[in-house]
Amino acid sequence: MDTIEAIRSRRSIRSYRSETVPDDILEQILEAGRWAPSANNSQPWTFIVVRDQKVRRDLANIATYGRFLAQAPAVIAVAIDPDASPHAVEDGAAATQNMLLAARALGLGSCWIGAYGSAYEGMAKDILAIPGRKRLLSLISLGYPSESPIETRKGLGEIVFHDKYGQK
Amino acid sequence: MDTIEAIRSRRSIRSYRSETVPDDILEQILEAGRWAPSANNSQPWTFIVVRDQKVRRDLANIATYGRFLAQAPAVIAVAIDPDASPHAVEDGAAATQNMLLAARALGLGSCWIGAYGSAYEGMAKDILAIPGRKRLLSLISLGYPSESPIETRKGLGEIVFHDKYGQK
Repeated sequence: MDTIEAIRSRRSIRSYRSETVPDDILEQILEAGRWAPSANNSQPWTFIVVRDQKVRRDLANIATYGRFLAQAPAVIAVAIDPDASPHAVEDGAAATQNMLLAARALGLGSCWIGAYGSAYEGMAKDILAIPGRKRLLSLISLGYPSESPIETRKGLGEIVFHDKYGQK
Repeated sequence: MDTIEAIRSRRSIRSYRSETVPDDILEQILEAGRWAPSANNSQPWTFIVVRDQKVRRDLANIATYGRFLAQAPAVIAVAIDPDASPHAVEDGAAATQNMLLAARALGLGSCWIGAYGSAYEGMAKDILAIPGRKRLLSLISLGYPSESPIETRKGLGEIVFHDKYGQK
């Protein structure tokens, strides 16, 4: 799929068909995460592929906005090492966004669940056995979509300035 | 350009030819930023398009790793509003990554300069007149590339676990 089309048509998908995500598709998604940019090419990320149903259920049970994690056939957790990069949060977010776009291009639906700094983070870290200083940035649910939600965005006129903030 | 190819072939480009970036190309890049996902669709971002040479020079002069900002024909600054989203940093990073990928797909080179939380951020905020509570997340330099740098990444075997952290 064309890059601009993938960016423009990606939606947060929270409802999935029951088919599993093939290994080769999952690997292409992880590859997309691997090639994200990071500060000084530090690559401060670890990707945990969660297929085990009990682990997905445990993650879903503690997630106010992530009950659908139990139904998603696969989940990727993005952990980051804040000691490895001064911009570990941005780096992990770039890897997450690459994986969402790759998922879209490969026909999968996905949803980004923000964990970093939330009440959810510590509990999810325990479930995933993420060690002390590492942080959980995000969870990405993955599956073949069974919904086509509509999303809207502010127009460019509302969010773009020229040369200085406030200058139209 | 194909999505996976754009993700896989994007490099940090710090050297540019002198041609300007056409307005319609720049608009497609901003569109890509606009369509990024954000927590609760809060869209906590503002994009400042910097073409003015004095502003680019001022930004370059204070940037240890960003001297090339003076030579890039265009720069996009991504400001975020931490009061608008609990995940404003991740949201702004997703928008930044979308714009880097769109630039690659449209034949442009770009480089992400991390500003958030650095010594550079406050000085750059002053130059760009970004108001008090707003934060400067990143600067994106843009131009037609005059270099083809090689980048490497860790293999998936080093960064992927299954079901729990540490489990191969």
